[in-house]
Amino acid sequence: MTEHDPAVGDLGEAAVLARILGRLGPSDALVGPGDDAAVLAAPDGRVVATTDTLVHGPDFRLAWSTPFDLGWKAAAVNLADVAAMGARPTALLVALAMPDDTRVSVVEGLADGLRAACDALAPVCRVEGGDLTVSDTLTIAVTAFGSLDGREPVLRSGAREGDVVAVAGRLGHAGRGLALLVDRFRDDSGTPVAVGRADLTPDESADLDAQLRPSPPIALGRVAADAGATALMDVSDGLVLDASRMAAASGVTLELSTDRLGADPSTALAGGEDHALLATFPADTDLPEGFVSIGRVTAAGAHAVLVDGHAHAGRGGWDPYHDWDAGRG
Amino acid sequence: MTEHDPAVGDLGEAAVLARILGRLGPSDALVGPGDDAAVLAAPDGRVVATTDTLVHGPDFRLAWSTPFDLGWKAAAVNLADVAAMGARPTALLVALAMPDDTRVSVVEGLADGLRAACDALAPVCRVEGGDLTVSDTLTIAVTAFGSLDGREPVLRSGAREGDVVAVAGRLGHAGRGLALLVDRFRDDSGTPVAVGRADLTPDESADLDAQLRPSPPIALGRVAADAGATALMDVSDGLVLDASRMAAASGVTLELSTDRLGADPSTALAGGEDHALLATFPADTDLPEGFVSIGRVTAAGAHAVLVDGHAHAGRGGWDPYHDWDAGRG
Repeated sequence: MTEHDPAVGDLGEAAVLARILGRLGPSDALVGPGDDAAVLAAPDGRVVATTDTLVHGPDFRLAWSTPFDLGWKAAAVNLADVAAMGARPTALLVALAMPDDTRVSVVEGLADGLRAACDALAPVCRVEGGDLTVSDTLTIAVTAFGSLDGREPVLRSGAREGDVVAVAGRLGHAGRGLALLVDRFRDDSGTPVAVGRADLTPDESADLDAQLRPSPPIALGRVAADAGATALMDVSDGLVLDASRMAAASGVTLELSTDRLGADPSTALAGGEDHALLATFPADTDLPEGFVSIGRVTAAGAHAVLVDGHAHAGRGGWDPYHDWDAGRG
Repeated sequence: MTEHDPAVGDLGEAAVLARILGRLGPSDALVGPGDDAAVLAAPDGRVVATTDTLVHGPDFRLAWSTPFDLGWKAAAVNLADVAAMGARPTALLVALAMPDDTRVSVVEGLADGLRAACDALAPVCRVEGGDLTVSDTLTIAVTAFGSLDGREPVLRSGAREGDVVAVAGRLGHAGRGLALLVDRFRDDSGTPVAVGRADLTPDESADLDAQLRPSPPIALGRVAADAGATALMDVSDGLVLDASRMAAASGVTLELSTDRLGADPSTALAGGEDHALLATFPADTDLPEGFVSIGRVTAAGAHAVLVDGHAHAGRGGWDPYHDWDAGRG
């Protein structure tokens, strides 16, 4: 096994890089991987750019996620941030820091997951460069690029009194998936153990997929922009927390209603990592297919967000510095 | 002390972010920090993009580098990769992963160093976004952006038989600085200890600065492009190793001469991290100010690089997977 699956520390940088590049497919950039930098097309004279990092420990556990899952998720969460500006993802750069005893099959799985997520969620987008380095902590830092194709970017700050609040994509599934992992896939000491799906219901298995390999509605970001969305963001940390950010940026209150949030509204309100799109539209907009109305925008009141008319008492979302407990799992 | 310098884990994400943003200066982007993504101008319809990561352990030690040094270096090494395409740096994104007991003064020092390096090396360039997350290992992943301003990018692959080989910037200083750290600033168990400069000569102190806070000749990348450079790259891993990469990409041999490499040619040949610019120019070019001829390009021979007419026997540069020994210091 080890003979056919050497550690990256035994292979060396150039050989590891060659294995990765072989799996990413042909470059679509003006200058792709292999030079000091990539050169990407920015057809309308602007480029959308965002970076988001997955770190072993707080963001994933190798006992729970396959390398393919990790590559997929690292791409998906960044594609969602591009979509949340109303843009079309065009390219990724990937900085990979990993222990030198990491098996090259792990790196290959990561590369496969990155490519598969791009193919599924943003077909023209490819990995066009990156960086390899050694670290005690497996870390995947992705930068995603996008084109607005002449559109104005849709910011968090554009929600106006009277607008409809809408979401596209799922809410709560990834949060329930995380709870499943923490509750059922740890040993007595709290250490994560490999996931077995035999005892899971189909819904539970789907929740696990939503956590490990999210599929945000990337194309609906441009659709929202074209339909006249006044504000747009992705729900990464929980609906209430992210809605409160949009409310603060826009100087309004967002009044949410739980009757469109499914059978488990409390997880839909607080669970992060689904990367649904939260948007506001003028009240007379025919909501584009894929968006569901969940509330309305009112003048700024005592609370940034109201849920069914009340301040939200429960947990509203995720803060990496408050919510990560290394002992939790 | 602790009361006035809380841990990031006690402050929370929003408060840490506010402290950083306050030190980065006003945004120069179409959409700056605070939304799902930045929107950057790409005036000629293309954007140069590169990412490079500094990891605690292999890339720096907090006993040796101040937070300011780290921020500076993280910016400088990425700016050099933009310059090495013949481009002008325009913006940075910074993904910061750090232990939750990291003091906020460390983050503030990092932000100050990032800004100072941009001000000194690429004055229009600013940090226009990023990501904060928790990690057991302090990690700074920077993505740098640049504009070619209508120029063609200068690749590694353009060196042609008969060209002059030239460098701009210094070679060997950062390598000697690293050797000083490893040799003189560790305790008996090999653990890094704080740097005291009292016993260093001025040259040694300058070498230390070159290692901890490099100042690559960023503006000379565009100068080289305008002067007709046929190939260009930055020397990050050692002159011989990086020259061999240029030779391989171009299908030529680079014949280097040590008579222009200063008093310590072996460190100039093998020492990394100075981020000098290595270029080739047509033989009849008047080399632009700041570039020094160090050899010529010949038809591909048995060796990618010759030094004073011979294959280079010594160490040629740095491979993170072969050269990092966690026990070394």
